[in-house]
Amino acid sequence: MPVVVGYVPTPEGRAALRRAAQECRLRNTRLVVINSNRGGKDLDADEAARYELELADIRSQLAAAGVSHEVRQLVRGMEPAEDLIAVAEEIEADFIVIGLRRRTPVGKLILGSNAQRILLEAPCPVLAVKADPVEAA
Amino acid sequence: MPVVVGYVPTPEGRAALRRAAQECRLRNTRLVVINSNRGGKDLDADEAARYELELADIRSQLAAAGVSHEVRQLVRGMEPAEDLIAVAEEIEADFIVIGLRRRTPVGKLILGSNAQRILLEAPCPVLAVKADPVEAA
Repeated sequence: MPVVVGYVPTPEGRAALRRAAQECRLRNTRLVVINSNRGGKDLDADEAARYELELADIRSQLAAAGVSHEVRQLVRGMEPAEDLIAVAEEIEADFIVIGLRRRTPVGKLILGSNAQRILLEAPCPVLAVKADPVEAA
Repeated sequence: MPVVVGYVPTPEGRAALRRAAQECRLRNTRLVVINSNRGGKDLDADEAARYELELADIRSQLAAAGVSHEVRQLVRGMEPAEDLIAVAEEIEADFIVIGLRRRTPVGKLILGSNAQRILLEAPCPVLAVKADPVEAA
């Protein structure tokens, strides 16, 4: 059963991707990376080009690590939580990996609405990963 | 690195324990089962005896499955979230497994305050598991 990870280019998104890749190596299973356009907005040409570069980099990192994978860039006007849950259902994922932002810029602990929704509505377990202390600092 | 699981005798607590045991077999690592007295209340003699029976049953199930383990029954007047986080820090856990209640009796989706706290404050990733649909029904 494949593992699904929600990727965004932030310290917690990268931590989630790293952990998901480790779990796939351990299980010898496939990783499906979902890059949802945040908030379901349309991308302009520059943003789309930037995303393409990031995704190409992720693909080569996963290939170098020997992790069988697929990257899906979803720009469908859905919320990121909906995208992740829909893909997890479609591929009968073993579990979903998400990154959690530990603190807001003013230091308050919060669990975002997308994270809450994925935790509650996912058809499978959810592994919640925080950014590495060094990278988040 | 060991895995920590928060156990309570509910469908989601049992699902968390099952998943944690599977993960430990996969990694060939030790499982630390934390049975926190909910809300930090003192147990009366009957409750304490019932817990002991449940824990003995868990011990034999894990031994039969070949999972190296330790069961800690914590009755220290701390919140369950504090117990789990303290143990995860002490043993440098790889991750914590918790059970999530998917719905309240009236069908509303909620994420309990203990779950939120563990997700945000744990020093390691947290695997959140829901009850199996059959057992939860």
